[in-house]
Amino acid sequence: MSEASHLTFDLDKIGISKGHLIVSKGIDSEALSLPVISLNKGEGPRLLITGGCHGDELEGPIVAQRLVEWLPEVQTCGRVIIVPVLNPPAVQASSRNTPIDGLNLNRVFPGRADGSVTERIADAVSRLLLPMADTIFDLHSFGALWEFAPAATTHPIADPDLMAKTIRMAEAFKLPMTLVWEHPETPGMFDVLAQNQGKVFVCPELGGGTVGAEALAIYEAGVRNALIALGIVKGKADYPTFRQQKSGHTFETRRSSDELKSPARGIFEPRCSVLDKVNQGDLIGILHPMESLPADAVQIRAPGTSIVYAVRSGAYVDVNEGVALLARPLDR
Amino acid sequence: MSEASHLTFDLDKIGISKGHLIVSKGIDSEALSLPVISLNKGEGPRLLITGGCHGDELEGPIVAQRLVEWLPEVQTCGRVIIVPVLNPPAVQASSRNTPIDGLNLNRVFPGRADGSVTERIADAVSRLLLPMADTIFDLHSFGALWEFAPAATTHPIADPDLMAKTIRMAEAFKLPMTLVWEHPETPGMFDVLAQNQGKVFVCPELGGGTVGAEALAIYEAGVRNALIALGIVKGKADYPTFRQQKSGHTFETRRSSDELKSPARGIFEPRCSVLDKVNQGDLIGILHPMESLPADAVQIRAPGTSIVYAVRSGAYVDVNEGVALLARPLDR
Repeated sequence: MSEASHLTFDLDKIGISKGHLIVSKGIDSEALSLPVISLNKGEGPRLLITGGCHGDELEGPIVAQRLVEWLPEVQTCGRVIIVPVLNPPAVQASSRNTPIDGLNLNRVFPGRADGSVTERIADAVSRLLLPMADTIFDLHSFGALWEFAPAATTHPIADPDLMAKTIRMAEAFKLPMTLVWEHPETPGMFDVLAQNQGKVFVCPELGGGTVGAEALAIYEAGVRNALIALGIVKGKADYPTFRQQKSGHTFETRRSSDELKSPARGIFEPRCSVLDKVNQGDLIGILHPMESLPADAVQIRAPGTSIVYAVRSGAYVDVNEGVALLARPLDR
Repeated sequence: MSEASHLTFDLDKIGISKGHLIVSKGIDSEALSLPVISLNKGEGPRLLITGGCHGDELEGPIVAQRLVEWLPEVQTCGRVIIVPVLNPPAVQASSRNTPIDGLNLNRVFPGRADGSVTERIADAVSRLLLPMADTIFDLHSFGALWEFAPAATTHPIADPDLMAKTIRMAEAFKLPMTLVWEHPETPGMFDVLAQNQGKVFVCPELGGGTVGAEALAIYEAGVRNALIALGIVKGKADYPTFRQQKSGHTFETRRSSDELKSPARGIFEPRCSVLDKVNQGDLIGILHPMESLPADAVQIRAPGTSIVYAVRSGAYVDVNEGVALLARPLDR
């Protein structure tokens, strides 16, 4: 029998420690070795920061690496565990799902010790890292196919106290958007597992489109703001500048009713930008059936008053593919 | 024997005509049917505008469709032929190359009437459309993996008169960058074929990253500026606003010496933005080997004074993959 998943070092050790989370060998892959950094200043908040759950969302791993550079110098208390890349095979393949078993890591929590590689990663994280934290920032993003404003998101939570605490934590990122996101596909998500254990879990959907220097600076500022709110770092939180504005708004959205879909196959032309306010009938985009002539273009219009929080990059899309996501100010 | 490639309508007809370029059936595919729009106001410049040569560069097809909407109303003279999508199978697959035969359409010109599907497209365009034009705008872009400022580009041309005319035409787009691009891989390119026939060929590399509403507006303004310079449209050309600036600069670059490559496999973190001026030793990006710890990150620095004209989006890259492209002001 192969060696069980384990950490190569003691997370309880005071100071800066670096080592690996070894995910056990299984029938479908060799053991994986995930770098882990522990910044332990003793008493205080216990935070776990993870990136690279999906292999096509690289903002998280990069922001996590940046934290490792500056956080040790300014951390005043508490414990921060950083795992820049949760799913190395998916990142290497630039693929949302793990190429080895085709699974989405964020749908298999708490995982299985004797499962396929994605399930074994989830199991190792759930058993060996999650118990060490009361707050989790799981750094996601929207990938290259969408324009999406930097946002801190949570799904709705049944427990009203935990919901309120989680929204406060998400708002502390001071990103352009805080989003309460009703998502139909919740089983097996990392946040559901953590929230069922009473933990505060925020999932910054740190943008989309090009992963560039300016976007990364906003994301990093968001995480720093959250660390200040937690009391781990001293400093003054401030809204980062996004499109020449410093502001943050809290929205809610339902994936089922607030997603606009392509009416046909063809080239989607975006006609709005993220954070645009739209009223019923406003133009969101145009669908150009490719083999027919331009007169056959189909206009996609807003069904009601809302905010655009994500819009598909111009691309060839299939019928019924999502092309825009809308939201409304959160009704508290 | 199948029907030869042909146009379904007469391009010489005065007024607005719409029809198709039929690319003949071959051993590897059925016939293709490419929508073509002819805007013929008689005497004046003869312009061919093409998009969708590469299936993962959707700015061109979208801007071409927009032209079809407004150009008929404002065109004062000349003939404009618009083909929004040159390579429908590649666009449907969101793939640079044609998925059927694996070929890059922009490497097989002038094509072959009895070749594979990509060669048959090139042949039909070369024989049936190219002779109708003295000026060609082939609307490309840099794709989702790069940040790239909207630019009008040309490769170096041996004939100094045609070179000067082509640079003037490229500069007339008034995009943030005009670029004379020494490219090692010229055989079979559409522009080489057209230039060898004495035609002015400009290849707007209309950006990169997310294909969003703001970027598309800049691209459309660039093409409108060029139409004004040609005298096809009346109006005042103006630099579009890009990153809060209105400006245009003309650069030259050598693909061989001005491309910075990844020193190892890992996650590339961009640390500069397009149009940044850099001096020798300035930080361009960081390469994070993924399985080792952050201390092993490798800094990628500028080899000399230059302008960043393209930078890779944060992503997992292989050793020796391009991560940044540099340029210098054009020495005329």
